Amino acid sequence: MTFDAQKIAKTLGIKIGNTALFQEAVTHRSYLNEHKGHPVPHNERLEFLGDAVLELAVTERLYADFPHRPEGELTALRAALVNSDMLAKIGHDLGVEQFLLMSRGESKDTGRARQFLVANVVEALIGALYLDQGYGAAQAFIEAHVLTRTKEVLDAKLYTDPKSRFQELAQEKQGVTPQYRVLRESGPDHDRRFIAGVYIGDELIAEGEGLSKQEAQRNAAKEGLLKKGW
Amino acid sequence: MTFDAQKIAKTLGIKIGNTALFQEAVTHRSYLNEHKGHPVPHNERLEFLGDAVLELAVTERLYADFPHRPEGELTALRAALVNSDMLAKIGHDLGVEQFLLMSRGESKDTGRARQFLVANVVEALIGALYLDQGYGAAQAFIEAHVLTRTKEVLDAKLYTDPKSRFQELAQEKQGVTPQYRVLRESGPDHDRRFIAGVYIGDELIAEGEGLSKQEAQRNAAKEGLLKKGW
Repeated sequence: MTFDAQKIAKTLGIKIGNTALFQEAVTHRSYLNEHKGHPVPHNERLEFLGDAVLELAVTERLYADFPHRPEGELTALRAALVNSDMLAKIGHDLGVEQFLLMSRGESKDTGRARQFLVANVVEALIGALYLDQGYGAAQAFIEAHVLTRTKEVLDAKLYTDPKSRFQELAQEKQGVTPQYRVLRESGPDHDRRFIAGVYIGDELIAEGEGLSKQEAQRNAAKEGLLKKGW
Repeated sequence: MTFDAQKIAKTLGIKIGNTALFQEAVTHRSYLNEHKGHPVPHNERLEFLGDAVLELAVTERLYADFPHRPEGELTALRAALVNSDMLAKIGHDLGVEQFLLMSRGESKDTGRARQFLVANVVEALIGALYLDQGYGAAQAFIEAHVLTRTKEVLDAKLYTDPKSRFQELAQEKQGVTPQYRVLRESGPDHDRRFIAGVYIGDELIAEGEGLSKQEAQRNAAKEGLLKKGW
């Protein structure tokens, strides 16, 4: 795997001035162990920066495009556009994987861990683009590859995760982060049922049932939104 | 309470073009119930926007000023600068409270709820400034009133909340948000002890003890960081 800035520029449809920044953006920390003389650090600091650039570009577009949606809906919509599942999908569609610099061990793992790695590289690339070409260029990239997914998110209602909404509203209205606990489990292994409770502080707000703990928690959050009238 | 844009401009040391944006920034949702003809909406959408502007301005400054700090430390440092406690303090020092438009009921509450309200107004004012005067003006405001607190945060080690660090590292390394559960309680009411466990998925990573659930959770997170070698 050699680093080819021109190929990255062409693939992503961007201009690249400082190639080292983009090399850094595609360098996973695992790569450095196997390549001691690698000329750049790993991509985590660029990811930190790119995440904030992405957040602002998405925020200001949603703010402008949906003047009548309340903040809670905009927050949920933004979360659906910038979460790691979505960024992994965007990175995959862009062909980012071919540029990854990672250890041999890491490159064998093509599951969930790889998804995260791809999502992180997308953020790091945005960070590199921001430093190299400025906010306008980063924004154009985000408009072209992230914000074009807005319709898909709206159509599939990907933004209505009840746990996110409940958390966001609990923080906004009561200044606390809700917690979930599994209250009961029942049934045989192949048909297990879970009852989860959502708590604000020590107060049990609502319960939900599901075939997995996650599903039970989502249903508890849904019920909690109703009970709270949110 | 009448709205006075010039006084806001003078107090905050900013220029104001579109006064309606700043009136919106100081309007709490409770005010609208008592003032049906109020010419602007409440400040929550501006707060949504301002939060993202604040995040980027703080992120890029920390990124530039601390070239050798890893992403985890930068994230913790940023969280300490933009959390609602800090923003409430900044708003208070700026004298933001005198401009708040809120219901009579809300104005009697001077505790925790007021703190949140002030913190939210600071974000909304940043959002208004961004729309009205651009990123540079918002950035200058953030440099002058938020980033000047960086030394104080570093000196007081306000950034080393073990729960935040554990969460951030669990998300980064394993893609999951840790959960806390209270495992045991003991002792009489006036001298209650709690044992909390921190979990990644279903795995109990570590336990911690404390005089409150929060303290027990913090200690569990501290122990978890050690056990994981993070």
